[in-house]
Amino acid sequence: MAAANEPEVIRDKAAMRAWSRRRRAEGKAVALVPTMGFLHDGHLSLISAAAAASAGPVAVVVSIYVNPSQFAPTEDLATYPSDLAGDLRKLSATGAVTAVFCPLDLYFRGSAGRPTGASAGAVSCLEDAGGSGHESWIRVERLEKGLCGSSRPVFFRGVATVVAKLFNIVEPDIAVFGKKDYQQWRIICRMVRDLDFAIEIIGSEIVREADGLAMSSRNVHLSHEEREKALSISRSLVNARTAALNGNNHSQQIKHQIVQTLTEAGGQVDYVEIVDQESLVRVEKIDRPVVICVAAWFGKVRLIDNIEIQTAS
Amino acid sequence: MAAANEPEVIRDKAAMRAWSRRRRAEGKAVALVPTMGFLHDGHLSLISAAAAASAGPVAVVVSIYVNPSQFAPTEDLATYPSDLAGDLRKLSATGAVTAVFCPLDLYFRGSAGRPTGASAGAVSCLEDAGGSGHESWIRVERLEKGLCGSSRPVFFRGVATVVAKLFNIVEPDIAVFGKKDYQQWRIICRMVRDLDFAIEIIGSEIVREADGLAMSSRNVHLSHEEREKALSISRSLVNARTAALNGNNHSQQIKHQIVQTLTEAGGQVDYVEIVDQESLVRVEKIDRPVVICVAAWFGKVRLIDNIEIQTAS
Repeated sequence: MAAANEPEVIRDKAAMRAWSRRRRAEGKAVALVPTMGFLHDGHLSLISAAAAASAGPVAVVVSIYVNPSQFAPTEDLATYPSDLAGDLRKLSATGAVTAVFCPLDLYFRGSAGRPTGASAGAVSCLEDAGGSGHESWIRVERLEKGLCGSSRPVFFRGVATVVAKLFNIVEPDIAVFGKKDYQQWRIICRMVRDLDFAIEIIGSEIVREADGLAMSSRNVHLSHEEREKALSISRSLVNARTAALNGNNHSQQIKHQIVQTLTEAGGQVDYVEIVDQESLVRVEKIDRPVVICVAAWFGKVRLIDNIEIQTAS
Repeated sequence: MAAANEPEVIRDKAAMRAWSRRRRAEGKAVALVPTMGFLHDGHLSLISAAAAASAGPVAVVVSIYVNPSQFAPTEDLATYPSDLAGDLRKLSATGAVTAVFCPLDLYFRGSAGRPTGASAGAVSCLEDAGGSGHESWIRVERLEKGLCGSSRPVFFRGVATVVAKLFNIVEPDIAVFGKKDYQQWRIICRMVRDLDFAIEIIGSEIVREADGLAMSSRNVHLSHEEREKALSISRSLVNARTAALNGNNHSQQIKHQIVQTLTEAGGQVDYVEIVDQESLVRVEKIDRPVVICVAAWFGKVRLIDNIEIQTAS
């Protein structure tokens, strides 16, 4: 790979912003792909989407940062997989990444030992920051509530906040998010609309392994057996879509079928929901564009997946 | 006044952002002065501060927008004074304003009649927007709680959110806020730090009438008699500072004296607090830089004022 294709690695906020402003001054669009690292082909597809997002020249920035504020203390921040050297090799090999933003820490940590303000009982892994630490949070109040928000009450607060920070540091024209995290994608779109960020958000399709499993950094934690069982997720979603397209528009029946498939395979269902694609409000009848969203545990790994249904008879 | 000094009036978000980017491309710093209109000399002092904020050329943008989301339904949104023609004349006369941003509405309003998500019981005058309306809110969770936050629970949520929107629309390098709204100024500084806005925030000193009353658009609602009584605010604050500088460091005593003065004058006290200038946490002893903050009603008008004390013996 030619050195010209080596992405520049940037660790400092101010350097990142200055870099980005130089690219824009050169007439390039800046496209951001926010990640938590441990990159797989799903991430690489986001980079392709970013590179193709503008008719003119694009500078693609990939950020790698495991965001503590979107994990609850009971969740897997400590074991979230990471491999920065491997990530940089993969990014380099794409030839499509202009810069990698790898900050050590994005949050102000207070000096005192008191917890930061955590209203409405929301507590994340950031919350041991001191009394003068980070305390500004963005909430997308309706969209954050259902689906993953029910079992992960601080998750989307942390996601929206860190994404806003990345937007203000990188100042991109375009940002790409995977539709695997469907609710996250919709929340970011809504935040961008409501807070007037001058950024075009692109939702990129789910990338699956050959056997159908949606790609996820957490898949590495699945045992061979758990992974086999987890295939029930994509299988049940495809079957559900087929049923809906064949005329079964009863959400309850379709959801029941998915829960049964997952449970029989040995999964523990967190939720199965059929919701409006825009509002994420539950639908009883599939009479508009919907998405079926699933979260389920296989062993100690919580997996999510979804499938869109554009039309139903 | 030469036509060259006439500010350009801009009503559209996209036009505002494009205008601002052109000024920056010309090498100018963009300085924003957010206001709710009905301008007085206090606002004009913010404009002077904005014009002087950079060594190089500065384009000063004044925004005029009465923000519904920072008013509770019980508050005075409907009677908030306005005089756009007068405001434009005053801004023109300064010769220092390059553009005036007067949007008709900054919020997305939903189509359905359901209220927008209002978690934690926060309801503002925006909350009758429909189910697909605005739902993204910024909260600065510790600083928003005391002082005005106690009696105005949606106020700082609305302020932080609309200011973030204005920041994303105008994309200023500098923004100026009056220290009369001391808590608001500190909240904006904290939001800018926590969310990584690339904006320098300037806090501008309180401007007072000849008799000491802090300038406020709401002063116009005071009767002659109420206005006389309201002078007790600035008088009691100056006396309190004198006492502190003369060695009385007991917050409780000093607060008691202020409450007594305001009450004797016929005011109804909302709060009198002596707090740390940065954290806005109450201090028992005046042994660091503090600010004494007051909110009190005179007739139907709620007035706020404050005085900083940098040192105490």
